[in-house]
Amino acid sequence: MLLKQFFTGKIAHSSYILAGKTSCAVVDPRRDVDVYINEALAMGTAITHILETHLHADFLSGHLELAKKTGARIYAPASASCAFNHVPVSDGERIRLEDMDIAVWETPGHTPEHVTYIVTDRSRGDGPVGAFVGDVLFVGDVGRPDLFPDRSEELADKLYYSLHDKLLSLPDYCEVYPAHGAGSLCGRSLGAKRLTTIGYERAFNPSLQIKDKTAFISSLTTNMPSAPDHFGRCSDINRRGPALLSELPALESLTPPAFRSRMRQSGAAVLDVRGYAAFAALHIPGAWHIDLSGNFPTFAGWVLPPDQDLLLVADDYEEALEAKQWAARTGIDRIGGWLAGGMTDWALAGFETDRLGLLSVEDLHAMLTGHQTFTLVDVRAPQEYAENHIEGAVNIPTADLRTRWAELDRGKPTVVICSAGIRAGLGACILKRQGFREVYNVAGGMAGYSAAGYAGPCTVCVIPHGSRYFSNFIG
Amino acid sequence: MLLKQFFTGKIAHSSYILAGKTSCAVVDPRRDVDVYINEALAMGTAITHILETHLHADFLSGHLELAKKTGARIYAPASASCAFNHVPVSDGERIRLEDMDIAVWETPGHTPEHVTYIVTDRSRGDGPVGAFVGDVLFVGDVGRPDLFPDRSEELADKLYYSLHDKLLSLPDYCEVYPAHGAGSLCGRSLGAKRLTTIGYERAFNPSLQIKDKTAFISSLTTNMPSAPDHFGRCSDINRRGPALLSELPALESLTPPAFRSRMRQSGAAVLDVRGYAAFAALHIPGAWHIDLSGNFPTFAGWVLPPDQDLLLVADDYEEALEAKQWAARTGIDRIGGWLAGGMTDWALAGFETDRLGLLSVEDLHAMLTGHQTFTLVDVRAPQEYAENHIEGAVNIPTADLRTRWAELDRGKPTVVICSAGIRAGLGACILKRQGFREVYNVAGGMAGYSAAGYAGPCTVCVIPHGSRYFSNFIG
Amino acid sequence: MLLKQFFTGKIAHSSYILAGKTSCAVVDPRRDVDVYINEALAMGTAITHILETHLHADFLSGHLELAKKTGARIYAPASASCAFNHVPVSDGERIRLEDMDIAVWETPGHTPEHVTYIVTDRSRGDGPVGAFVGDVLFVGDVGRPDLFPDRSEELADKLYYSLHDKLLSLPDYCEVYPAHGAGSLCGRSLGAKRLTTIGYERAFNPSLQIKDKTAFISSLTTNMPSAPDHFGRCSDINRRGPALLSELPALESLTPPAFRSRMRQSGAAVLDVRGYAAFAALHIPGAWHIDLSGNFPTFAGWVLPPDQDLLLVADDYEEALEAKQWAARTGIDRIGGWLAGGMTDWALAGFETDRLGLLSVEDLHAMLTGHQTFTLVDVRAPQEYAENHIEGAVNIPTADLRTRWAELDRGKPTVVICSAGIRAGLGACILKRQGFREVYNVAGGMAGYSAAGYAGPCTVCVIPHGSRYFSNFIG
Amino acid sequence: MLLKQFFTGKIAHSSYILAGKTSCAVVDPRRDVDVYINEALAMGTAITHILETHLHADFLSGHLELAKKTGARIYAPASASCAFNHVPVSDGERIRLEDMDIAVWETPGHTPEHVTYIVTDRSRGDGPVGAFVGDVLFVGDVGRPDLFPDRSEELADKLYYSLHDKLLSLPDYCEVYPAHGAGSLCGRSLGAKRLTTIGYERAFNPSLQIKDKTAFISSLTTNMPSAPDHFGRCSDINRRGPALLSELPALESLTPPAFRSRMRQSGAAVLDVRGYAAFAALHIPGAWHIDLSGNFPTFAGWVLPPDQDLLLVADDYEEALEAKQWAARTGIDRIGGWLAGGMTDWALAGFETDRLGLLSVEDLHAMLTGHQTFTLVDVRAPQEYAENHIEGAVNIPTADLRTRWAELDRGKPTVVICSAGIRAGLGACILKRQGFREVYNVAGGMAGYSAAGYAGPCTVCVIPHGSRYFSNFIG
Repeated sequence: MLLKQFFTGKIAHSSYILAGKTSCAVVDPRRDVDVYINEALAMGTAITHILETHLHADFLSGHLELAKKTGARIYAPASASCAFNHVPVSDGERIRLEDMDIAVWETPGHTPEHVTYIVTDRSRGDGPVGAFVGDVLFVGDVGRPDLFPDRSEELADKLYYSLHDKLLSLPDYCEVYPAHGAGSLCGRSLGAKRLTTIGYERAFNPSLQIKDKTAFISSLTTNMPSAPDHFGRCSDINRRGPALLSELPALESLTPPAFRSRMRQSGAAVLDVRGYAAFAALHIPGAWHIDLSGNFPTFAGWVLPPDQDLLLVADDYEEALEAKQWAARTGIDRIGGWLAGGMTDWALAGFETDRLGLLSVEDLHAMLTGHQTFTLVDVRAPQEYAENHIEGAVNIPTADLRTRWAELDRGKPTVVICSAGIRAGLGACILKRQGFREVYNVAGGMAGYSAAGYAGPCTVCVIPHGSRYFSNFIG
Repeated sequence: MLLKQFFTGKIAHSSYILAGKTSCAVVDPRRDVDVYINEALAMGTAITHILETHLHADFLSGHLELAKKTGARIYAPASASCAFNHVPVSDGERIRLEDMDIAVWETPGHTPEHVTYIVTDRSRGDGPVGAFVGDVLFVGDVGRPDLFPDRSEELADKLYYSLHDKLLSLPDYCEVYPAHGAGSLCGRSLGAKRLTTIGYERAFNPSLQIKDKTAFISSLTTNMPSAPDHFGRCSDINRRGPALLSELPALESLTPPAFRSRMRQSGAAVLDVRGYAAFAALHIPGAWHIDLSGNFPTFAGWVLPPDQDLLLVADDYEEALEAKQWAARTGIDRIGGWLAGGMTDWALAGFETDRLGLLSVEDLHAMLTGHQTFTLVDVRAPQEYAENHIEGAVNIPTADLRTRWAELDRGKPTVVICSAGIRAGLGACILKRQGFREVYNVAGGMAGYSAAGYAGPCTVCVIPHGSRYFSNFIG
Repeated sequence: MLLKQFFTGKIAHSSYILAGKTSCAVVDPRRDVDVYINEALAMGTAITHILETHLHADFLSGHLELAKKTGARIYAPASASCAFNHVPVSDGERIRLEDMDIAVWETPGHTPEHVTYIVTDRSRGDGPVGAFVGDVLFVGDVGRPDLFPDRSEELADKLYYSLHDKLLSLPDYCEVYPAHGAGSLCGRSLGAKRLTTIGYERAFNPSLQIKDKTAFISSLTTNMPSAPDHFGRCSDINRRGPALLSELPALESLTPPAFRSRMRQSGAAVLDVRGYAAFAALHIPGAWHIDLSGNFPTFAGWVLPPDQDLLLVADDYEEALEAKQWAARTGIDRIGGWLAGGMTDWALAGFETDRLGLLSVEDLHAMLTGHQTFTLVDVRAPQEYAENHIEGAVNIPTADLRTRWAELDRGKPTVVICSAGIRAGLGACILKRQGFREVYNVAGGMAGYSAAGYAGPCTVCVIPHGSRYFSNFIG
Repeated sequence: MLLKQFFTGKIAHSSYILAGKTSCAVVDPRRDVDVYINEALAMGTAITHILETHLHADFLSGHLELAKKTGARIYAPASASCAFNHVPVSDGERIRLEDMDIAVWETPGHTPEHVTYIVTDRSRGDGPVGAFVGDVLFVGDVGRPDLFPDRSEELADKLYYSLHDKLLSLPDYCEVYPAHGAGSLCGRSLGAKRLTTIGYERAFNPSLQIKDKTAFISSLTTNMPSAPDHFGRCSDINRRGPALLSELPALESLTPPAFRSRMRQSGAAVLDVRGYAAFAALHIPGAWHIDLSGNFPTFAGWVLPPDQDLLLVADDYEEALEAKQWAARTGIDRIGGWLAGGMTDWALAGFETDRLGLLSVEDLHAMLTGHQTFTLVDVRAPQEYAENHIEGAVNIPTADLRTRWAELDRGKPTVVICSAGIRAGLGACILKRQGFREVYNVAGGMAGYSAAGYAGPCTVCVIPHGSRYFSNFIG
């Protein structure tokens, strides 16, 4: 038995190859699957099984793509009623992979159809080596049960039993292979470590310390982080099977005039993925802006209309390609071209441009202590805002600005701040698109503001760089 | 806390980054260290600690190279008496890395100075998360105590206490981070899985089931695999600190005439790293041959004289560079050039060439059932030979052929067989260098012979391809 | 005006980008066209024109592929009657590209429909800067008029006028941009230099020194090199427009069992592209062998049946991909998979293998001076054979062996020799496929044999390495 | 004979390999020489000769580096009195390279010691094939004779004779291989085409049409473009031999705190190579800024103090490495580190930042037609300014701003404009470093301003994108 974990940043997703000597299973594959095919080939094993723990809400699965490319069979929970060709699995069933027994346990809670796959390596012993727990149990956290708003309590109740009656019946030494790590919105506060054990979580996982079921349910149905828009559509796409990547439009290189024609003729929206500073200084009027260095796929899935054609602005072709790949992972599929030559060529063509302000933390501090009148919008999550914020700042999380901009005065200078400058860059473009005239982002955000000594630190804040790994969720 | 494992094939070596939010430790780094530097940079963490569990016998450590490139401090067992600048650590000491406590436990046995580093993540709880056990405990095996031949029993005794009194005192849930995986000669039979837990090994590790100390010692001091020659020198080089990679000679591209001049003037030996078939058909007379696709670094360290200049024959420059890198990992440092244009250009120059025979398994079977007189040498390890072999085959493990060729009749046709053709290719070149005139390798080896139905299967045989991951040790 | 030449080795083909400030033309593009698209993008120019001088016989054109990807218009000789959408051009017409005038001159001879494009850069002066002469005039040679066997004299006559009345009317300073360089079979003996001038060729081109038309015709219709089989089909494919590369089958990685099943079920032939030494030692029985390091695409087009499915044996995936790309350039399109793990894994599976002999030049010399009876077949071109050969050697050029093997005694040992070992490798596999039992190749071939002092040198011999650039045609 | 040209953009430098069958010469190599070594290896030829036409003023030569790596001999003009080991060559001498005769002709004018190498390919004929003319003759231009200010007339006089009495004595068909193309400051207005012929230049080169010597001298000693600062030091460094690249400091990755410490402790200056928009929005106070996408090496050599340590700000490591390589080509050698994590991490650390304004062409037009008081500085070359400029704009070429800033009013808002935004970005940083408070760059520059219809076009303006190849000189 050999286990290999594949961690995909930003969506903070863990998938796995579980291999015997000549065949292997892929568990919860991401949409672009060449990484599994290449690894299996290097191992000299054929991919024969594809195991889905549940219908993922936060990214598109590669189950179908992988099955088409390898001929492997897909195993998925029977209760998911998947529309594609698969082997439905139910509680108590067993799957054999060479020396290994894989037991199916139904563990609803995060979603109704969720199962866990428990591996026993008969060549070593009859105890369970590890469990593919999907989104039921995480390092330091448990799966959130509130993604189906009117079923939160019911699912939290099921989750309680899935954990206490099922997973915690496993021995302490049993390894835990979750589908997500720090940065995922499928839990509240996942740890950075990517694997764990039943015994360690039994001892130290905060949610598992809440033995009272009512308290447990309450803790998981209140004050949960917002769920991005695409969480509402990915599950169903995964049930039906996403489009194959080869069916997505190719990424065309468009000169500035061709790019502008396409904008006008096809009504395509512009998505600018450059860094927040370059965007602030110079961009195409009306462009969306999601800095690729932050949690680009999650925000792309969250705020972009999935049924609109998009054209990219990037620093170069490689960056544009990378953006296209990330976007596809959360189902943003209609990216047809990019601006060859970037904004430099656009400006040379004499085409219209726009900009927004970018403040340093000193600038912001000076403004706050001066006499200027302006609105300060803190677009971080409420949990971050709760820990440290600037007096007078209004808290409207980034994606909420799409509707809640109406609470603000469009005529006043508006400063948008997040933890770093990345989410605020998106927030600022949302305001610009709504006609706010004088909009500012703050470089360094609350992290820089704190580091410069103007505010206390924030221990829960998400910071994309500095300690990049720790939470690359929100930026 | 974030843990990242780096597995280096062939030497089957696991090293680790243990990271906090802004700083990290590298545990048991390999000699070429850019992989750690790049990963730490990507994480946004500075490498501040370098932890050595012991003086590695089977590869050269990158501790010094990494310290020079990053400014990190090296922590090494006090009793190792390392000659370079370091922090000596002893039983019971603690190292702090942000939220993490790292306890030092002396765990002699595999080597006298061996320590284990036990990590507690204070941000999660006061129980130990995991242990960097170096070569004390492996997945399904324990470290071999017989590398210092006259101290085997003493070390096996210490190993018993290190395991039973120390490591097994850890809780079941504690993760185990060993320094090697399947294919390593630092144990007898390591599992393919790369991580494990205390509880799982307590329950299923065969060596840990031997509760009687005498039996334990006996089991680990008899019938152990041979230890390659470089195991006798690497520890001491690691104690002093290996040469920096930038100090090794550059890999010059030499035309056939320049290559031949260098052979003659400097007395450099030729090392041919191409596949065994190409070598069999055409090579430079007297060349060493170690097929790069097998366990090249181990055999290079084992059979090549470390103080001789070497010149490479490879298919292309990339392959030559790769061979140079692998060789450096086991201390074969004096590779100064490669034959540009390969054997094709050598032959075009009209220079002398040699060849050896390559039999198919059908050929071999026909010879065995015919009337031809020949010697059949099986160069696999005794353990492999014990499980399945051809009647009449003499068992002389590959490296032993360097001296034991004298047991064979130089005048008779000699067929060399291993499990695949890779070790036998090396064996064949050893015989050729000793003046054997008619030497054959067998393509596919015992694996092919068995697969073709001429012999029973071998479950312990090492097979480089087919199930590549399972044991890439010996090929 | 900017000119960029793209030289594609093996097929020894030169294509060009002729660029203005914002737009450019591609002249005689090869089939895989990304190289032009990327260069044009880097220049900031749009590809607007695709110019074909004639219907190429020796490779597939990328005109249609490039037009589909860029929207550029194809310009082709009216008399070619191309079946795809294009602008037909005739003598005396002019094409405008920014500051540049491109005059069309009909210059039949190599083919009936051939035109030359003469460029005048109006921004610099009214004299012609250079001429895209296709296959009419080369560096040190002229286009061969004998590709349409029954029209050789007629075309040679036309060629005389195209050269003397047309091209030589250009001023001495006018640059010459031919479609081929050394190694091409579209002439008899092209120079290594890749560009030239009208004046230099007027003074020193041997064919242009023959002022007498009859002598000129005679010199170009006798003793010409053989034309490969695909020369008889590529022109027509180019007239219709080749399949798009995206429509060719993908290169699947097949394990040995899957590979063998495919061989058996689909009747696919095996094409082994490894070096001749590795092939000699170990190959799949019945495999075709064309060493990728020689003129692979030309021999693939020459000897392989274009309508048969093929499976590749290569050292690794990159080599297999490269072989697939080269094969597509001469219209060998049906390559569907490659043997993952190569021959090492094939042998491990215990599957049947074959081999042939590989002699050193010393071995051959010893055989020749000994008493052994064998056939020696020299598979070089007659021109090479004429200059130096071994007494007693029969001259049958490589591709001719497909039919002329019948002249040889299948029961005798047969040694195949070429200039290096590459063509002879192909020759040897042809004999093996015809049931010759004992077949040998000679490593180093006549070049090595001469270099070792056993024979005089050959000044016209084609040698793939050593001076690789000089003629990479035949190997 | 085979000729291969290597064009290095930005410095617009052409170097060459002139190859026979087994050996070759490299003519006027650039400082980083692996490109020649790899190409020679691919050709199967050994580099045996290194030919220098003269002491280059505009870049550092790789003669010494290449000689050390290959053992080839350097040939250089005797009158250059080079300090390293070389073969001095004088008028009328001949160098033999296989079939080729290389005649040395002294052709002073651009520099006093300049020679031309004339190649005759004896295998084809006794007329000259081509001439390596260095900086004497270009496509559409001649070498400037004014780089030694007090010797301009003397050198122009010599140039006249070198051209008319020497080079123009060559036949029309002789090819011309110059050392520079469009974008070089070694002439006034070089053509984009990279090769030419004697006859074509005789007919159409504007400078060669001036038959009167006095007029010729006058035309080349008046209104010449400025010569960058490094032109005054490179010749002498080339005479002595530049430092080997392996002796330059490695590029360290520095976290923001380490970067800031280094700035403070070593007095290193910061060089920001990002795009002008990103720089405008956010940069380290006091940083130099040269946008890597423009003619970075020339401006780096021009304005940066060569004896100061430098630290880079770039978007990523690859960009930083690329900047280091470009800088080395013009002798900026002391780049020791780059800011890992870029400005995003710098801002997160709360460190001080600065910015400047970036106007769109609409903004500028509005300011010009409004009532605001500001200085408009046009930093293009006088030749560009002469053709089109905005009324009221002061013309101070970019590098001159280093001293001529004193002509401007530091207290007034100052708008800097060039053709695109790249040179103006450098100009703006120079003003900021001099204490100008309110400084603006204009995105798109005069090119965008014209394209938007606010001004007439400029035919001589240098535009980095759009038609990138045409002149990448100044940006």
